[in-house]
Amino acid sequence: MTDKFFSLPKGFCSAGISVGIRKKSPKPDLAVFYSEKLCNAAGVFTTNRIQAAPIIVSRGNIKSGSSQAIVANSGCANACTGARGLSDAHKMCSLAAQELSLKKENVLVASTGVIGQFLPMDKVRMGIKKIASLIQFPGPSDSRLVFQSVRAIMTTDTVPKVCRRQFKVGGKKVVLWACAKGSGMIHPNMATMLCFILTDAGLLPSVMREMLRPEVEKTFNSLSVDGDTSTNDCVFFLSNGLSGAQIKSRTEKLRFQKHLGEICYSLATQMASDGEGATKRIEIFVQGARTDAEAKKLAETVATSPLVKTAFFGEDANWGRILAAVGRSGVSLNPQKIDLYFGPICAARNGQPTRFSEKETKKILKQKVVPIRIVLHQGKGQTRYLTCDFSIDYVKINADYRS
Amino acid sequence: MTDKFFSLPKGFCSAGISVGIRKKSPKPDLAVFYSEKLCNAAGVFTTNRIQAAPIIVSRGNIKSGSSQAIVANSGCANACTGARGLSDAHKMCSLAAQELSLKKENVLVASTGVIGQFLPMDKVRMGIKKIASLIQFPGPSDSRLVFQSVRAIMTTDTVPKVCRRQFKVGGKKVVLWACAKGSGMIHPNMATMLCFILTDAGLLPSVMREMLRPEVEKTFNSLSVDGDTSTNDCVFFLSNGLSGAQIKSRTEKLRFQKHLGEICYSLATQMASDGEGATKRIEIFVQGARTDAEAKKLAETVATSPLVKTAFFGEDANWGRILAAVGRSGVSLNPQKIDLYFGPICAARNGQPTRFSEKETKKILKQKVVPIRIVLHQGKGQTRYLTCDFSIDYVKINADYRS
Repeated sequence: MTDKFFSLPKGFCSAGISVGIRKKSPKPDLAVFYSEKLCNAAGVFTTNRIQAAPIIVSRGNIKSGSSQAIVANSGCANACTGARGLSDAHKMCSLAAQELSLKKENVLVASTGVIGQFLPMDKVRMGIKKIASLIQFPGPSDSRLVFQSVRAIMTTDTVPKVCRRQFKVGGKKVVLWACAKGSGMIHPNMATMLCFILTDAGLLPSVMREMLRPEVEKTFNSLSVDGDTSTNDCVFFLSNGLSGAQIKSRTEKLRFQKHLGEICYSLATQMASDGEGATKRIEIFVQGARTDAEAKKLAETVATSPLVKTAFFGEDANWGRILAAVGRSGVSLNPQKIDLYFGPICAARNGQPTRFSEKETKKILKQKVVPIRIVLHQGKGQTRYLTCDFSIDYVKINADYRS
Repeated sequence: MTDKFFSLPKGFCSAGISVGIRKKSPKPDLAVFYSEKLCNAAGVFTTNRIQAAPIIVSRGNIKSGSSQAIVANSGCANACTGARGLSDAHKMCSLAAQELSLKKENVLVASTGVIGQFLPMDKVRMGIKKIASLIQFPGPSDSRLVFQSVRAIMTTDTVPKVCRRQFKVGGKKVVLWACAKGSGMIHPNMATMLCFILTDAGLLPSVMREMLRPEVEKTFNSLSVDGDTSTNDCVFFLSNGLSGAQIKSRTEKLRFQKHLGEICYSLATQMASDGEGATKRIEIFVQGARTDAEAKKLAETVATSPLVKTAFFGEDANWGRILAAVGRSGVSLNPQKIDLYFGPICAARNGQPTRFSEKETKKILKQKVVPIRIVLHQGKGQTRYLTCDFSIDYVKINADYRS
């Protein structure tokens, strides 16, 4: 990735450093994202009933629709940590607020990593102080510092995940930038990872909320790596308006939302491709379901089937397993009316095998991105869903994650 | 296993041979189970919407409550095979009926193996003829032939699964015997595998149905290897009454049902321990849920979490992942009131870490059977649920299953 990807919208800066929260291989594990001007803000949070302390704190702080900084760490999720955890999450906000001269209510906090351990608050305190001194403002953000801040939120991710768009609104240049982390414990019914979206366009908090939820639904909430839903997932969306461009008209809103959706989808594909142990990304298209919701339910069942995912790892055109998952999804269907495609190749028509070429299909299964399409012929419901294969490395990564 | 395990109830016999349906390593792949007298019969079938041809045929044949033989094969599931598959399943019944001089409606058929391929009917025809000639009746069943019949239904199973009980009813000796196959694609909402239960006690079909469903619910339907539900699962229960003992009184029924439940549970534990690639069996006990149904829903979410299962493979006391699964189960709970135990060791109390000994916990995690207990303190709902760990071998087995 080039420097361009790590260039933030106007008035934003960030930095990340290693303070030793992560016990294994050292890499940055603490980051701060900061705007020189108070931002309008919106967020989406995990639906897991067991919510990490930073989720509880950030949910409270973002309610006002205002925010100016995000403090985030990897290596420790600060989840299942009770009153002490909650106090630590509040403390992270007030430490950042103090160093950056903000109100603590205008700081958001996010943590990711091992569940059930307490944060080493001495290290966090020192780290926040150091990061604050690194962040030079006002002025353009330093792309090396930004790069380290994105690395700081990675856990088992093998690559940093960013996406950046630049476009004009009413003749003014606007930048929309986002980073995300997410590799395991990724499943919908929430934001499914950490994602920070920053823009210098001016947006009202109510408009930001209206835009964010449907785009998250179509992207991060249509992505499953392993069917597990984290206690810590959240998407933060901050707008400081420093480009001078205000998004007001319906046309401008729709255009901005399209860019937002594309940024979220790009990050979702990056997460699927970098799923723990993944060797390929699987893009599932379901068509002809009775409703979009049924299409999504079906896609999710296929996307989380270990038998389907291991077959993709083996590059095996085992369409029978896909149909078995389709059948148990609970979705209304006629078994005699299902078509299944690997790329352009139809492997099953009307629920029965076709004489497809295993050799040609293998070529598709060897791709880095494998599109499959399931057509039910029951109605107009459709969906697009992302997942990845299930490899030996997934098991290796997760068998000894904590140690 | 000793010969005793392969000794069938009075009047039953069975045999299995290799006819080459399975393409890989040769082992028996076709079996017939036969009773010299017409049996009363009951069955439980998969709830997958895509049902294999033998399921459709057997469901029809068992409705009368009478049956006299089961013909079963491995290597090909005869699922997603349309009209030709249905005709082949009917043909298997009529071939067995012809060779054994029965009505074809009194033959049940079961298939297991790869989905989406047609049965090699020439081989099946020759095989049924040969098996019929091997089955010598009347007379005690030959335990070597029975052993081969049990092996014939195995797919990725590494060991044959049988259970046998002998007890007295009204002074008369009664035998209850069952065999099962199941290692992958095992998940509830159905019978979750093939299981044939045979007894020489006399039971009415209505009583057999009454007994079978709740016991299947507590055993086979409380078991998940990989969350995948097969298109071919069924449990057949046959009673020929040749012991001379009739189960009539309420006390006798309850006693018989208890034995039936224990036999089903024994087979379910054998399946969990022999789950594809499994190195250990996990027994999940949930207590203090609002209802038994919520307890089961929670246990199932934990049992199917790849992150939980890989941690067990790594013998890692990663209780945070278990709580994360608990939290996404959708079950009513108070995060501050959850206790979690590995064997007798309490790793989390009130949703927070205890100072438990990792060393002592490791000893429990190294066992062949690992009991875990989750207590919600919300009510009196409870359940017992079986699963296994998720290993590198699971992925290896399933990446190249079809080839």
